[in-house]
Amino acid sequence: MSDGFRDLGYARPDLDREARLGLPEVVYGPGKAPGEIAGIVRALLADNTGPVLVTRVEAGAAAEVLAGVPGGTYDEPARLLAWRPAARTDFRLAVVSAGTTDGPVAAEAGAVATAVGLGVDTIRDVGVAGLHRLLAERERIAGADAIVCIAGMEGALPSVVAGLVGKPVIAVPTSVGYGATFEGLTALLAMLSSCAAGVTVVNIDSGFSAAMAAFRISRSRG
Amino acid sequence: MSDGFRDLGYARPDLDREARLGLPEVVYGPGKAPGEIAGIVRALLADNTGPVLVTRVEAGAAAEVLAGVPGGTYDEPARLLAWRPAARTDFRLAVVSAGTTDGPVAAEAGAVATAVGLGVDTIRDVGVAGLHRLLAERERIAGADAIVCIAGMEGALPSVVAGLVGKPVIAVPTSVGYGATFEGLTALLAMLSSCAAGVTVVNIDSGFSAAMAAFRISRSRG
Amino acid sequence: MSDGFRDLGYARPDLDREARLGLPEVVYGPGKAPGEIAGIVRALLADNTGPVLVTRVEAGAAAEVLAGVPGGTYDEPARLLAWRPAARTDFRLAVVSAGTTDGPVAAEAGAVATAVGLGVDTIRDVGVAGLHRLLAERERIAGADAIVCIAGMEGALPSVVAGLVGKPVIAVPTSVGYGATFEGLTALLAMLSSCAAGVTVVNIDSGFSAAMAAFRISRSRG
Amino acid sequence: MSDGFRDLGYARPDLDREARLGLPEVVYGPGKAPGEIAGIVRALLADNTGPVLVTRVEAGAAAEVLAGVPGGTYDEPARLLAWRPAARTDFRLAVVSAGTTDGPVAAEAGAVATAVGLGVDTIRDVGVAGLHRLLAERERIAGADAIVCIAGMEGALPSVVAGLVGKPVIAVPTSVGYGATFEGLTALLAMLSSCAAGVTVVNIDSGFSAAMAAFRISRSRG
Amino acid sequence: MSDGFRDLGYARPDLDREARLGLPEVVYGPGKAPGEIAGIVRALLADNTGPVLVTRVEAGAAAEVLAGVPGGTYDEPARLLAWRPAARTDFRLAVVSAGTTDGPVAAEAGAVATAVGLGVDTIRDVGVAGLHRLLAERERIAGADAIVCIAGMEGALPSVVAGLVGKPVIAVPTSVGYGATFEGLTALLAMLSSCAAGVTVVNIDSGFSAAMAAFRISRSRG
Amino acid sequence: MSDGFRDLGYARPDLDREARLGLPEVVYGPGKAPGEIAGIVRALLADNTGPVLVTRVEAGAAAEVLAGVPGGTYDEPARLLAWRPAARTDFRLAVVSAGTTDGPVAAEAGAVATAVGLGVDTIRDVGVAGLHRLLAERERIAGADAIVCIAGMEGALPSVVAGLVGKPVIAVPTSVGYGATFEGLTALLAMLSSCAAGVTVVNIDSGFSAAMAAFRISRSRG
Amino acid sequence: MSDGFRDLGYARPDLDREARLGLPEVVYGPGKAPGEIAGIVRALLADNTGPVLVTRVEAGAAAEVLAGVPGGTYDEPARLLAWRPAARTDFRLAVVSAGTTDGPVAAEAGAVATAVGLGVDTIRDVGVAGLHRLLAERERIAGADAIVCIAGMEGALPSVVAGLVGKPVIAVPTSVGYGATFEGLTALLAMLSSCAAGVTVVNIDSGFSAAMAAFRISRSRG
Amino acid sequence: MSDGFRDLGYARPDLDREARLGLPEVVYGPGKAPGEIAGIVRALLADNTGPVLVTRVEAGAAAEVLAGVPGGTYDEPARLLAWRPAARTDFRLAVVSAGTTDGPVAAEAGAVATAVGLGVDTIRDVGVAGLHRLLAERERIAGADAIVCIAGMEGALPSVVAGLVGKPVIAVPTSVGYGATFEGLTALLAMLSSCAAGVTVVNIDSGFSAAMAAFRISRSRG
Repeated sequence: MSDGFRDLGYARPDLDREARLGLPEVVYGPGKAPGEIAGIVRALLADNTGPVLVTRVEAGAAAEVLAGVPGGTYDEPARLLAWRPAARTDFRLAVVSAGTTDGPVAAEAGAVATAVGLGVDTIRDVGVAGLHRLLAERERIAGADAIVCIAGMEGALPSVVAGLVGKPVIAVPTSVGYGATFEGLTALLAMLSSCAAGVTVVNIDSGFSAAMAAFRISRSRG
Repeated sequence: MSDGFRDLGYARPDLDREARLGLPEVVYGPGKAPGEIAGIVRALLADNTGPVLVTRVEAGAAAEVLAGVPGGTYDEPARLLAWRPAARTDFRLAVVSAGTTDGPVAAEAGAVATAVGLGVDTIRDVGVAGLHRLLAERERIAGADAIVCIAGMEGALPSVVAGLVGKPVIAVPTSVGYGATFEGLTALLAMLSSCAAGVTVVNIDSGFSAAMAAFRISRSRG
Repeated sequence: MSDGFRDLGYARPDLDREARLGLPEVVYGPGKAPGEIAGIVRALLADNTGPVLVTRVEAGAAAEVLAGVPGGTYDEPARLLAWRPAARTDFRLAVVSAGTTDGPVAAEAGAVATAVGLGVDTIRDVGVAGLHRLLAERERIAGADAIVCIAGMEGALPSVVAGLVGKPVIAVPTSVGYGATFEGLTALLAMLSSCAAGVTVVNIDSGFSAAMAAFRISRSRG
Repeated sequence: MSDGFRDLGYARPDLDREARLGLPEVVYGPGKAPGEIAGIVRALLADNTGPVLVTRVEAGAAAEVLAGVPGGTYDEPARLLAWRPAARTDFRLAVVSAGTTDGPVAAEAGAVATAVGLGVDTIRDVGVAGLHRLLAERERIAGADAIVCIAGMEGALPSVVAGLVGKPVIAVPTSVGYGATFEGLTALLAMLSSCAAGVTVVNIDSGFSAAMAAFRISRSRG
Repeated sequence: MSDGFRDLGYARPDLDREARLGLPEVVYGPGKAPGEIAGIVRALLADNTGPVLVTRVEAGAAAEVLAGVPGGTYDEPARLLAWRPAARTDFRLAVVSAGTTDGPVAAEAGAVATAVGLGVDTIRDVGVAGLHRLLAERERIAGADAIVCIAGMEGALPSVVAGLVGKPVIAVPTSVGYGATFEGLTALLAMLSSCAAGVTVVNIDSGFSAAMAAFRISRSRG
Repeated sequence: MSDGFRDLGYARPDLDREARLGLPEVVYGPGKAPGEIAGIVRALLADNTGPVLVTRVEAGAAAEVLAGVPGGTYDEPARLLAWRPAARTDFRLAVVSAGTTDGPVAAEAGAVATAVGLGVDTIRDVGVAGLHRLLAERERIAGADAIVCIAGMEGALPSVVAGLVGKPVIAVPTSVGYGATFEGLTALLAMLSSCAAGVTVVNIDSGFSAAMAAFRISRSRG
Repeated sequence: MSDGFRDLGYARPDLDREARLGLPEVVYGPGKAPGEIAGIVRALLADNTGPVLVTRVEAGAAAEVLAGVPGGTYDEPARLLAWRPAARTDFRLAVVSAGTTDGPVAAEAGAVATAVGLGVDTIRDVGVAGLHRLLAERERIAGADAIVCIAGMEGALPSVVAGLVGKPVIAVPTSVGYGATFEGLTALLAMLSSCAAGVTVVNIDSGFSAAMAAFRISRSRG
Repeated sequence: MSDGFRDLGYARPDLDREARLGLPEVVYGPGKAPGEIAGIVRALLADNTGPVLVTRVEAGAAAEVLAGVPGGTYDEPARLLAWRPAARTDFRLAVVSAGTTDGPVAAEAGAVATAVGLGVDTIRDVGVAGLHRLLAERERIAGADAIVCIAGMEGALPSVVAGLVGKPVIAVPTSVGYGATFEGLTALLAMLSSCAAGVTVVNIDSGFSAAMAAFRISRSRG
């Protein structure tokens, strides 16, 4: 190791991100062989002390990696591998999703947030086309320190939520639906166009990125 | 005249649309000189008995046309010229808009609907980011025979409205806003993606088309 | 159950939509396991009295659901599951499609409309490139209370139909074709650009949404 | 002059296109000063014997050019300058347009076609939303050797025409309209998607290109 | 049969297109079962006298159809089924393609053109990046009555060809290539933008449409 | 007043947003006449106790509004009107921008953030093409509680900043530049694609939205 | 000055780029007031020894800047301000453009290249639709050390040139033309799709960027 | 053979490109059968003396081709077949990539560059989100004669690199990532928008094109 990274040939893991940023180490799984993932994780576990995560890993590959690097856990709906999860802090994150088909993205957001120490409250299937379902959870949402809003067929959910509470709202468009949803692009643009003040947006389907944005918020005043 | 139209050289007004379809005669103003508009309107007034409308006419051109074809009225916010408006029927149309900047489109929808005989109830500035404003009008909206929902910076309004009432909901995206609104395209696609069942959509900024869709609905069971 | 919905964990079915809106209960099938669909349908059947529909279900999954929730029927071309279909009203809907490849969307529109009680008249393969086929059905189309127009390779059909009849015209673009059809986007935009007054449009391939829009129209003056 | 062109510094007119291709010389006006246009036209008149055209020239610039290069004529609706127009051949071109706002493009198509020797029959305002206007001209259209179809708010016109006649149909989308017409893109894609066999398309607003395509057809069997 | 078509339930074949337009009968294969194709072909053979074609049929389905409707032939590279091909006329069509990967589209163009009676001369792999290959065939191309130009990775071929010959040039973009070719969209737009006068364009990959456009040209002066 | 808003006819200001959300009242200026703005501001000042802001107001209109509603201030580079600005809290926001042309957006972000009580540290012209300028400010940026990153011609700035600090990073794409920047769309998509974990994005040019997102963060743990 | 830049408040000129990269200092003009430009140029002249350029400056602003910072020159067609141009090296750059409307971009490329010391040979109006004009200059082009190819209405020019010579080819799409040219996007994508090996592309209309790319090439083996 | 190419029926290999341009012969593999590839390679080997390459060949097809044309080698990560590779020159190319998922494109760039005689230095996984990894390699990058920069999820890498070194920088966007990366389009546009002077760009995923651009640069002053 030198200069804060190690050159594995196929990868160059960033070994002092934890020290530098206080952020956990997260590996993007797609395009890497199980053996490569295992090698990277081993390096990160050796040179750091905090959580190590791998996102978007299918069940078969996850089993191979876990066989090679014991001590981790795999959350299948979230497709997340995690080692050394953080202790739970008192930061409370509400993960609110519009439809049942948005479930896998909500699972990723919740699992990553949990692994980095946030307290997660999951509220599903509260799309704006049946508004009373959402309004019934208003108190619960208002009690959170930040809210992740996940929706695909309606970009409206974060607008409505941001009109109900004054806490940070992080919107995640999803690629569910067909036709004019254009695999999440419509929800993405609708969320950005929102006239509700101060809604922020992350990439389509990126439950991971929303959770990390919440984690950054939890450390804002640290 | 022959075959139901008259060839004016610069135009070929459809003189028996009224008889054929029961629809009023409507001329699209842009790209036509005031003299041409006057000529077309004169032909339509002569060969029909119902309303004659011209959309998207600026005030100066409107004055010229009215000077040449007396008996009409001009609605400036709606940019609409009208002759022989229809008697008011008992069909009640709610024209609901999200923001004050959506006003000109709401004005066009309301003026056209009134000119063809619908009773219009205008409800402004009830965007979903301040939901209580919309919920306060729920009864009023539910009492209409059809609802036109106009919004630019949030495609969400028709979804929410269609979850509150079971009557026809016609959505009109508007070109207000900036950046990711893409001059109405985002609202258009968001309205089409809506998971609320049975919302229909017309062209960006087309208050006219929404009013005519409502008129067709008013004649559905005629 | 509380507040008009029931929290099943994986879903939160909207149990008083029927009472609130007079609309039937419809579940979007994709992304839900047969067991989840069965659970949602059971809850909806228990707490409501009207039709319960599930759209876009493949034959295998449909058989599993029906095994778990008896009393329903499956329409394979329409990919629709239905329980407790409504009695037929006297509202007559014409479902007009341009090409034989638009058939599955026409099937969905027809099956949903029938299940919610509309009388459906299906007219196939009357694309505008062979106009006499359409003109031969003019009377039949003009006799309907509303018309659903389905086309992919030509967005022209609703324009032409709306020039022939004065009743509501609901256009459905389909994703058939190749190249410049861009999976329905071209037909979608062409239908919205139509110079025929008062045509409305729903999402690409959404026979379901067109049928529900017609159902809302049937209840407009109720 | 050498190698079939002359280097004027600011331009390099193609002086033997006429000999090489049998095509007239056409200069694209925008972005060129009147003096530059005059210089290019002079070179083309000197080294060739056929028609010389300049497209898309505004009236003021046209007057300046004509002052410097006598013998030409200016067609203002078509924005076309022409010198030495060709004698009329017996090739008959129908120029059919959907709406009055499509007029300038129809004017350019007609003026260019006339200048290169085609016999032009102009048929305006026969959009498909009032089909009887088009059907009334069926014979006249069927009598042409080729048809140029011009439309902006409805890409449907060429599909319908190509279903009525077996002669070459050249479609020209125009940039009129608003919202979902996207300045001609929607009409362009709709015309390309047409299920009518053998329709061809040229660039948005390019009456010039359509006329030249017809001219090439007129020389096909020469 | 009545009104020029026959209603088969699943389709409504246009039985007098031949009489009306002088065009052959062509069925678009995708989305139709072999049995449906066979039924349509049988109807067309019974009520017409000219060629009957089916495009885009895979080998397996083609064999099934031919088993049910004897007398036809299948061209596998072109994916074309044909019955009663037309006698060869003296109209000569050059089918020019840029790369070997454009081959299937060239095959379809050639096979359809041959089936409707045109004499086809195929010139392959003459892309503009190795210009001498194209220039070597200049005479051969100039001798044709019309030219179909097929290219995917370079929209330039029709521009260059149209600068070499004065006959009709029909451009066909193809969906080969990757990245910025966007499945043919780039070539499509580049061909439409061409500054070569009078090039026309058909849909991406539509060798069929190009051949039919050439057939219409062959009948222009008929 | 009733139900938390007042109906002014032309607008329906949300009078209890402050009480409901703890957020200041902000009016979007474009499309409203100075008299309308004045009326809305007066209502908001009367029924609330906190800051009242109007965004995107040109200097002339601002003077008119201030004449009618005294006590406010106008920040011309930010185009912001403000009444009753909040007392400065100890939350420190770094507003970092890539180029001098991004200045107006940075001005809006800074002025809005200041008006709602955040301490603002502005760092300009630290684009990634001259990385040492950014690295020289690393400490200063790392000392903030949240960072707003503004860039148009390079979407890279937030990625680099998020790799240097662990605090919340809110990215704002701007519409400066030409060609492939597509008026901010490229920067927008690039910021969303960022592989740096936890970056969030707001609408193009929306300094306002970024400031409000920071304000929400400042109240996260309140 | 510190850390290689100077903080002027409104800008932070990069004062050691010259030392660091060997590249000249270039300021992007749009969005900066003449006084700001003058201040930046003064700082750059004081702390460096090589050329200082400002791009895209209109004539009026240029005069103001030159009045404040003597010793510079203004090239109006290129809209370029330059101080201390470099001595001419023996690197020869051919600047080849397709049409006369591409002239301003060619002027910028030529003026920037000259100012940084390259020998420039300008070849105009050699579009591929009249190929002999280009082929006549083949020797001249082949003699250059690098070629900049500029075209808007035909993305084909760089493909053809790269098939004629083996030297570096830098393509510049321009925003001239109308309709399907989409302000340079079509040419941009067509140039990137080129099947000619090793063509590189810069931003739409960026003669500046092409010249700087050539300058980098001239220093490749330094 | 005649005119510098040979007509194989299915292809027309360009046999004197080597003599004409000094460039190696490269065949694009997709869409060609192994037998066709073998035939083309044989012709190229027979009529030339330099390297012959085939890109994008899968392992199975590669084995078939090598069986038929001995003497070649296959690089599986690069999917490249090569015969008669060039001797290594002293031109040094740095191939720098942002993430491990960009590996296959880096492999193609490196393998093609090596086969045509460039000395290749590969530097992987130095994305800008962990800047110290890139800065640690600054010397190594600065020592190259040209740099290829490959990135998908961040278009920023070439901007940063071009701010660190003055040598030619060729950017290659890759199609890795999801959502707003749009299969490389976002990185492509971001690279073109870069404010770093003189960066050039090739097609998405085209390691081949980048290597050939570098090869052209290596021959610039030859």
